[in-house]
Amino acid sequence: MKYSKPRGTRDFLPGEMAARRYVEQMIRRVFIRFGYKEIATPTFEHLELITAKSGEDIVAHLYHFKDKGGRDLALRPELTAPVMRLYVNELQNSPKPLRLYYFGNCFRYERPQAGRYREFFQAGVELIGSSSPEAQAEVIALVNAVLEELGIREYELHIGNIGILRKILAENGIGEEVQAHIMGVIDKGDEAQLEEELNRLELPEEEKEVILGVLELKGRRGEVVERAEALLAGRESVLKELRSFEEILDALESFGVKNYHLNLGIARGLDYYTGMVFEVYAYKLGAEKQICGGGSYSLAEVFGGKPVATSGFAFGFDRLLLALEKEGVKLPDTERTLFMVIPMGRELVPYAIEVASLVRRSYVCELEVMRRKVKKALAYADAKGIPYVILVGEEIKEGKVLLKDMRAKEQREVNVEELESVLAAIAKGNP
Amino acid sequence: MKYSKPRGTRDFLPGEMAARRYVEQMIRRVFIRFGYKEIATPTFEHLELITAKSGEDIVAHLYHFKDKGGRDLALRPELTAPVMRLYVNELQNSPKPLRLYYFGNCFRYERPQAGRYREFFQAGVELIGSSSPEAQAEVIALVNAVLEELGIREYELHIGNIGILRKILAENGIGEEVQAHIMGVIDKGDEAQLEEELNRLELPEEEKEVILGVLELKGRRGEVVERAEALLAGRESVLKELRSFEEILDALESFGVKNYHLNLGIARGLDYYTGMVFEVYAYKLGAEKQICGGGSYSLAEVFGGKPVATSGFAFGFDRLLLALEKEGVKLPDTERTLFMVIPMGRELVPYAIEVASLVRRSYVCELEVMRRKVKKALAYADAKGIPYVILVGEEIKEGKVLLKDMRAKEQREVNVEELESVLAAIAKGNP
Repeated sequence: MKYSKPRGTRDFLPGEMAARRYVEQMIRRVFIRFGYKEIATPTFEHLELITAKSGEDIVAHLYHFKDKGGRDLALRPELTAPVMRLYVNELQNSPKPLRLYYFGNCFRYERPQAGRYREFFQAGVELIGSSSPEAQAEVIALVNAVLEELGIREYELHIGNIGILRKILAENGIGEEVQAHIMGVIDKGDEAQLEEELNRLELPEEEKEVILGVLELKGRRGEVVERAEALLAGRESVLKELRSFEEILDALESFGVKNYHLNLGIARGLDYYTGMVFEVYAYKLGAEKQICGGGSYSLAEVFGGKPVATSGFAFGFDRLLLALEKEGVKLPDTERTLFMVIPMGRELVPYAIEVASLVRRSYVCELEVMRRKVKKALAYADAKGIPYVILVGEEIKEGKVLLKDMRAKEQREVNVEELESVLAAIAKGNP
Repeated sequence: MKYSKPRGTRDFLPGEMAARRYVEQMIRRVFIRFGYKEIATPTFEHLELITAKSGEDIVAHLYHFKDKGGRDLALRPELTAPVMRLYVNELQNSPKPLRLYYFGNCFRYERPQAGRYREFFQAGVELIGSSSPEAQAEVIALVNAVLEELGIREYELHIGNIGILRKILAENGIGEEVQAHIMGVIDKGDEAQLEEELNRLELPEEEKEVILGVLELKGRRGEVVERAEALLAGRESVLKELRSFEEILDALESFGVKNYHLNLGIARGLDYYTGMVFEVYAYKLGAEKQICGGGSYSLAEVFGGKPVATSGFAFGFDRLLLALEKEGVKLPDTERTLFMVIPMGRELVPYAIEVASLVRRSYVCELEVMRRKVKKALAYADAKGIPYVILVGEEIKEGKVLLKDMRAKEQREVNVEELESVLAAIAKGNP
């Protein structure tokens, strides 16, 4: 092969792309129904925007480069920072809340593996301007609505609260930067490194145990809250954080979402989360099981804006598709060709063009343009799974064509004037 | 402003993005009806793929960089080369013809101006596997169908044939590379430079005059063909090229496309065109008036594949939108919020959430999540142009809500059980 696609990237072929667009449209429809409006940002941003608050792991895997004007640019590794940059630049004075959604590609130079690509796609939202429990619950409910709409069955929604851990660390005199670093270590799931980092901070043994204990709090709401209250007894400001968290859960239940797990071990790999965080896992995907992640954060002030409460999430679009595939969900081919028009001789081409133009007013129709013998053109239609062929022969001069049902192997003569209604009946039976 | 978007790029805001998606969908529908299937390629490619045959001007404005593995990569400046790379890698053995379409972003480091951005969008097709006149005509007819569907009125479709000039140059012993360079100069429209280049080639005066004469051949078909035949008298192989070109025009007229101009001065800025070429101009756009360009070309062999006849085009998507805007075409807001649900007190939030969830099953509905007073929430609805508000007050406990028409300034009580049918009637009147 003389030229190949760059390692870790993908080509999307016909059929596959139609399925992707179909799923994209389904997601888009749910976002829109919740009142979210699409925005889009450039594929690359100034490097410093991306490094400002992205988390160590993301910065280590950036595609960055200088443009011909000497600017340091980076392909976006995620979309929350660009969206908040757009908000600060363009929308800070708009009525609140702002409900924004995006669908876009992101880039990370990582070791390619199943479900992990160097160019990948995210679909997500940001709800800007409210810290109310119902605002935070809304974004989780939206995730749930998308998953229900897509028909994904085997997933788990885990909700945590980074604020509890941050508060414990803060009360031990640990600043935000070190907190963020610790969160990154927790997110990576490397327990040995976490122990080491906590030892380095020289925390009292009891504090270390409380921190590690919080990370273990996983399960159903009632049980987790009970265990948390016991573990955090006497720490009033931390317990206050827990009670605010419960208000979000109450609102979430009003949204009809009850099938969630509490998981106080979620830390998220991005530095800007402040309180509620959540992740969705599709276990069938193996190691790269996370299909969605999000939470509440504060980022506008990092980009020179006024602080504003924000909640959001991003779906890993490629993984959603993998999850659907693993579950055997059959996606319709929205680009399927229903009809093909074949001229039965070179001099009949102009007639065939006219018939094809007529059919195309309403239906997907290919025209034979290869000047093949009819038999070969029919073999092509068969190979491509085109179910109906319209043969344009000498009878066209009396206003007639031959309509061939490729599966039933039947054909009949149809008057061109009646063609539209005949095809309409066929199309109705082949949605 | 602490961080801005990179120079020459754009942020797309709500409303604007909905309009873009609407136009994208219209284009997509026409492509699909003609039997084209979507494919997608990575945002960046190996640099050498892009420089292989892109034309000097494009190579001079590339965004290129090394990835962390030392690979030379470039952000794609156009999509035909990537699509043909995909074809050679993945689809060479598929039944022909292949009808492929794409919608994607491209990147060129050029001086930003109206209608010219460093990141821009192209929508295009490639018809691979046939050199028949009807195949070549089909892609032009498809361009015309898209423009008709969009409702653009003030455009001119110019069709030329690069094969005629190439043949004259070839018969003067000028190789393909120099031919390509000359085409690039013609494409730029710099007449002085063209004269200079032709002088440097030391062509006989008569040949130079024929070449410059061909470039002047513009107008209606009958007249241009007549003048071309006089100019090219005695040059049999060139006249043969002209006759093949006329077969394409015959087929195009069968497609119902008759409003075109012949223009033998079109050269295109890309090196791989071989014969028929065309461009569409929307003169209202000023200097950056070209909204579409395409033609027939041969590129697979450059990428290590078997030679295959191909025709294609790309729309400049951003310029299509500009042209629609200049013509005052009003695009619908497909993401418009029709309903907003407002709780009339904190304790009513759970009820409001449930009502909003009900409305959202079918309609776009925002929930008040700011814990504002009702008056302030109504002011927000007004500012956002949301036409109907559902107030959830104490009456919800008897299964009733207040439905408020923001424009008529009327409100009425509605039973929650009847809400769906009442909203359906409203939605019908607000498409």
